[in-house]
Amino acid sequence: MKAAYFTHNKTFKIEQVETAPPGPGEVEIDVAYCGICGTDLHIFHGAMPHRLGDRRVLGHEMSGTVAAIGDGVDNISVGQSVVVRPLDHCGQCPACKAGHTHICHNLKFLGIDTDGGFAQKWTVPAHTVHLLPDNMPLEQAALIEPLAVACHDVSRGRVAEGEDVLVIGGGPIGVLVAMAARAKGGKVTISEVNEARLAIAEKLGFETVNPAKADLAETIMAKTGNKGADVVFEVSGSQSGVNAMTTAIAVRGRIVMVAIHAEAPKVDLFQFFWRELELFGARVYRPEDYETAIAMIAAGEVDTDTMITDVAPLDDIQSAFEALDDNPTAMKSLIKVLDE
Amino acid sequence: MKAAYFTHNKTFKIEQVETAPPGPGEVEIDVAYCGICGTDLHIFHGAMPHRLGDRRVLGHEMSGTVAAIGDGVDNISVGQSVVVRPLDHCGQCPACKAGHTHICHNLKFLGIDTDGGFAQKWTVPAHTVHLLPDNMPLEQAALIEPLAVACHDVSRGRVAEGEDVLVIGGGPIGVLVAMAARAKGGKVTISEVNEARLAIAEKLGFETVNPAKADLAETIMAKTGNKGADVVFEVSGSQSGVNAMTTAIAVRGRIVMVAIHAEAPKVDLFQFFWRELELFGARVYRPEDYETAIAMIAAGEVDTDTMITDVAPLDDIQSAFEALDDNPTAMKSLIKVLDE
Repeated sequence: MKAAYFTHNKTFKIEQVETAPPGPGEVEIDVAYCGICGTDLHIFHGAMPHRLGDRRVLGHEMSGTVAAIGDGVDNISVGQSVVVRPLDHCGQCPACKAGHTHICHNLKFLGIDTDGGFAQKWTVPAHTVHLLPDNMPLEQAALIEPLAVACHDVSRGRVAEGEDVLVIGGGPIGVLVAMAARAKGGKVTISEVNEARLAIAEKLGFETVNPAKADLAETIMAKTGNKGADVVFEVSGSQSGVNAMTTAIAVRGRIVMVAIHAEAPKVDLFQFFWRELELFGARVYRPEDYETAIAMIAAGEVDTDTMITDVAPLDDIQSAFEALDDNPTAMKSLIKVLDE
Repeated sequence: MKAAYFTHNKTFKIEQVETAPPGPGEVEIDVAYCGICGTDLHIFHGAMPHRLGDRRVLGHEMSGTVAAIGDGVDNISVGQSVVVRPLDHCGQCPACKAGHTHICHNLKFLGIDTDGGFAQKWTVPAHTVHLLPDNMPLEQAALIEPLAVACHDVSRGRVAEGEDVLVIGGGPIGVLVAMAARAKGGKVTISEVNEARLAIAEKLGFETVNPAKADLAETIMAKTGNKGADVVFEVSGSQSGVNAMTTAIAVRGRIVMVAIHAEAPKVDLFQFFWRELELFGARVYRPEDYETAIAMIAAGEVDTDTMITDVAPLDDIQSAFEALDDNPTAMKSLIKVLDE
């Protein structure tokens, strides 16, 4: 099969490799589409090299068709359309024992810590496989993994019907969070400084604020009768986003920390005390978040045409990654692995 | 009656003043004891002068006996032992409408925004009065207000039987939080740098760590089988406390923000994301926290002899405040207002 190996230094090499048949408890998938995640881009730019070995097949936002199953795999059949929840937990650590297997102390992320989906075949543990409804286009299904992230974020924020929701940051994950929050009945405003992304957010039907042009907290307070947002998603990863999350929010408001803040920002803990704010970290997803995401795609609640801004063949993965550098109009770029 | 007026510039003046009888819906209380709160001390040192007018009777950690009731006050009788929950809310703001009256946007704190309990008589709205069990010593009852703060903190952290609890900061509130967490079945460790306070914490039966002498996170991880604390109370108000709260904690651990961080510290939001940590602000108390605190005192779950380190008459309030400057062995100083 053909596989795209990332060999560090912003370089992919396409190679033909032999694959072994799936072992006990494993499923071999013919990959159809595999999206480029922000994390893949960070790795492309040099992040986390120690997790990759000499070379690594990246990619985990995938869809495909079951090609073969190993011994002991029940309930999954050759030919079924599937996606993979790319988390393999240890089962032994305090997090696993407490039931939080998705944030296992020793979590292996498939497609980073192991080879992933930018290849024609991907063999994974059966417990990571989710079946898709018949007739779901596999191109759309490649959005399920990032949408499951968004569904997990919204689940952590417990967004309820009629609540005022603020999403700080209108990139791909921010927009998916906004969609998942709207699906729960939230009244969503997206804050974003980039005009191209604001236009996409508006096309998707969201109210928007450009905090470079209007005071974000004042705008949200005015929209909500001086109450503030009931739930705020911090997706920007910026100090200004962190500042806004404690000022644009209601008393007892819930903040969900979606962004990865590599540097510790200053956080106004006085506001946490004074207004009894709540902050919830959210990472990856639980199985039920995948089922929610699959149901949202199946119900047509995601404008996949607007979300998928580029599709390139596996042979062009190098240029597809390079094209995402400083490209604010790109939402989700897919690699089409399937030959047709 | 005799009242101690704070006239700014670290100065109290004792005066004789006339009092009006309680108006409709009000209760007049003969104050017995009134503790010196950390907030009173901050005010003594110049904080929040704009809330005080030219002069103010401070004090809210009080106990007393009902002296008179106004029209329309039911269920409260002259002669009953009572404490006051010193919060008066507006009933109109978004917080009140959402049921969070204790963090009302326009909250009046009795004894700061109005005259308080360092006086022989205190007249308050009837809805702020909690009745005490017969026979509860009024000296002990003066601890109910700060203990209710601690009970609210523990309620916000949802401490459950058998959970590992870390309290960062072993001053009066930290120790009361530890007691309230222990009453819920938590296995409590107190972190404190001051040796005198560590000795008091140990006398009260708590495990302790001095983070100036041992790595706090490593110590807690070793105690908990590499899990970390299930609930962390940040009571120190320090950057080092804020650093420890995200490292000594379990996956999905709950942090309760008790301290008042006047300056925004750096917070490791990456750990919130990575380990799905949760942070809950906690301010003052709800009525049920008062009832929990009253029940704890009644059940003898608070070593009041150790907690009350000084009792001074109202005439000596000036020296009682001055004695608390840099006095780490002081836990709770009471002003005895009652003449015997």
